[in-house]
Amino acid sequence: MQSFNTNEHPHRRHNPLLDEWILVSPHRTKRPWQGQKESNSTESLPEYDPTCYLCPGNERSNGTKNPEYTDCFVFENDFSALLNEEVEQTNAATSPLFKLKPERGINKVVCFSPKHHLTIPEMELTAIEKVIETWQQQYIELGNYDFINHVQIFENKGAVMGCSNPHPHGQIWAQSSLPTQVERTQKNLEKYYELHKTSLLKDYLNEEVKAKERLVYENNHFAAVVPFWATWPYETMIISKRHFGTIIAMTKEETVAFAEILKTITVKYDNLFETSFPYSSGIHQAPTDRLAHPEWHFHMHFYPPLLRSATVKKFMVGYEMLGEAQRDSSPEKSAAVLRELPTLHYKLK
Amino acid sequence: MQSFNTNEHPHRRHNPLLDEWILVSPHRTKRPWQGQKESNSTESLPEYDPTCYLCPGNERSNGTKNPEYTDCFVFENDFSALLNEEVEQTNAATSPLFKLKPERGINKVVCFSPKHHLTIPEMELTAIEKVIETWQQQYIELGNYDFINHVQIFENKGAVMGCSNPHPHGQIWAQSSLPTQVERTQKNLEKYYELHKTSLLKDYLNEEVKAKERLVYENNHFAAVVPFWATWPYETMIISKRHFGTIIAMTKEETVAFAEILKTITVKYDNLFETSFPYSSGIHQAPTDRLAHPEWHFHMHFYPPLLRSATVKKFMVGYEMLGEAQRDSSPEKSAAVLRELPTLHYKLK
Ligand SMILES: O=P(O)(O)O[C@H]1O[C@H](CO)[C@@H](O)[C@H](O)[C@H]1O
Ligand SMILES: O=P(O)(O)O[C@H]1O[C@H](CO)[C@@H](O)[C@H](O)[C@H]1O
Repeated sequence: MQSFNTNEHPHRRHNPLLDEWILVSPHRTKRPWQGQKESNSTESLPEYDPTCYLCPGNERSNGTKNPEYTDCFVFENDFSALLNEEVEQTNAATSPLFKLKPERGINKVVCFSPKHHLTIPEMELTAIEKVIETWQQQYIELGNYDFINHVQIFENKGAVMGCSNPHPHGQIWAQSSLPTQVERTQKNLEKYYELHKTSLLKDYLNEEVKAKERLVYENNHFAAVVPFWATWPYETMIISKRHFGTIIAMTKEETVAFAEILKTITVKYDNLFETSFPYSSGIHQAPTDRLAHPEWHFHMHFYPPLLRSATVKKFMVGYEMLGEAQRDSSPEKSAAVLRELPTLHYKLK
Repeated sequence: MQSFNTNEHPHRRHNPLLDEWILVSPHRTKRPWQGQKESNSTESLPEYDPTCYLCPGNERSNGTKNPEYTDCFVFENDFSALLNEEVEQTNAATSPLFKLKPERGINKVVCFSPKHHLTIPEMELTAIEKVIETWQQQYIELGNYDFINHVQIFENKGAVMGCSNPHPHGQIWAQSSLPTQVERTQKNLEKYYELHKTSLLKDYLNEEVKAKERLVYENNHFAAVVPFWATWPYETMIISKRHFGTIIAMTKEETVAFAEILKTITVKYDNLFETSFPYSSGIHQAPTDRLAHPEWHFHMHFYPPLLRSATVKKFMVGYEMLGEAQRDSSPEKSAAVLRELPTLHYKLK
């Protein structure tokens, strides 16, 4: 019988944030790919696009004109999935198997820069700090509504991630309930906190800093790792070194450090396949439900789909949808690749 | 204050199989789409393709020659994610936050037909019965290995679902552990069974048959519904009317009825946008762990990505990855659309 080797043998790893397992097939990277390829748009964009509904001064679909903004610009989503309307909170469920409840919320769009052709990895550090400050303001402003208990800050980047406009922007969905993934994470953080009286992610980060093999980058206040349980090929997580729960608990120095690691990670991503690297990213933090949440530890997830080139992505389909997430290389290998990449954007070489 | 209306107001619905909530935004269907479009391949395929590694008589990448098969053909996946190798079952975890264990399994490919250009909706009923019988045989054969506790039967159809070869085929991944989604489903079926001494899905189906509004099609032994908690725009679930746990518990008459509903649902799918409709589908059933599983109720999921045309899909990104699944129309509307579609394939019109 062979002895087990994580770089050779199929195995399952446990995600303690979601309390679920994923399948790792480290031997499978050599599989040939004859399937669908994504388009790799390398056309260079103009700094201002007269047809873009996010550029300063342009008109949006509802007739509103964007202001001549100079850093960030926030507005309510013209096609919100959630609505800020109070509807009767009757239990609309007609059976325990037909459980349903009205949900109230606010959807916003955050333009990161007036410049149509930029993305976070190409922005100045001070401009990225402005984005973080805008997220902080929004977290406060939205959290202040009595009916808002959770503020989800996220970004979809790239056409392959369903993003229909390359103008640098993200979204915020604020709502009454804790979304499924957040609620699940909270439950597991809470369980750990009650048992150990420490933050799960603080303990985890300490172990990652010691182990080193999944560490991609760190500065004084944050570290980026390929999580031990990463499902996407180059998934990463930025974790704060200090144990705090929300984006508004950051000191000014931490805000600057967060901007720096955000830029570094996204530059590394762009450098990986010398393309504008697509991903969905988002912040997981304590809800705005006015309760104490010592279990929460600020972190940001990056879920990028690309697998081995700018045009070949990982498909989370079939087995993954019905069974569990599966990856074709080890997280340690991905971390090593990302770690070695330069922190200077390839376009500046 | 307005009174709540499921066709107008954002709300959350509960999925009792996974015990999680999803977000429904029924008002959002009118959102314009300027993002990525999928290619709609309408080229007609040959009955035999000399370059296809699944066609009868052709050579596969490992040098093996396929037999001149005449109905179904099963072989071990040449690029298996799981391996049938016994490795030392030491606890490889070095910390409670780095939990990991070796996983052993077998991956198979099931060709549904020797004819390269067919898919299930275009196959004869008797040929589809042959597919089901092949699944039954595989469930028995794989389940007989002492180290196999779960057999996942599934199909990825269409390039957008990561399928790299249009030759009609599915896969089977058999393994030692219960995959995450299956384990979660089992836990919830079990809880319900212990409480009510009945099958959750039997009770659910009874209510759907009464309510009618999410029912798409039924025959004597099976019904297809858009689940109350469907996340994909045209997601459906085929549920057996009789309470049994696995594909090998089916009578001959049920096997014939299963073939009939499989054909009907996939024909309706093809007719929806007059295209070869992409999806991932798969069977959820009792594991092969040699334990009694009265809680399990045979069902098959269809997760199709298309949203409003053959080229515009729903992106499960950003909010969906970090928060929870979200849909832009009501399941009732999707069911009404599917229900009205003809059961004759559009190519035969
Ligand atoms: O095995 P295939 O068809 O090459 O690969 C496809 O299905 C697998 C099982 O759902 C996935 O893991 C792969 O990402 C997908 O591309
Ligand atoms: O709001 P957008 O950018 O138009 O839409 C995109 O992001 C949303 C939030 O992740 C998703 O629900 C949509 O499916 C996706 O296309």
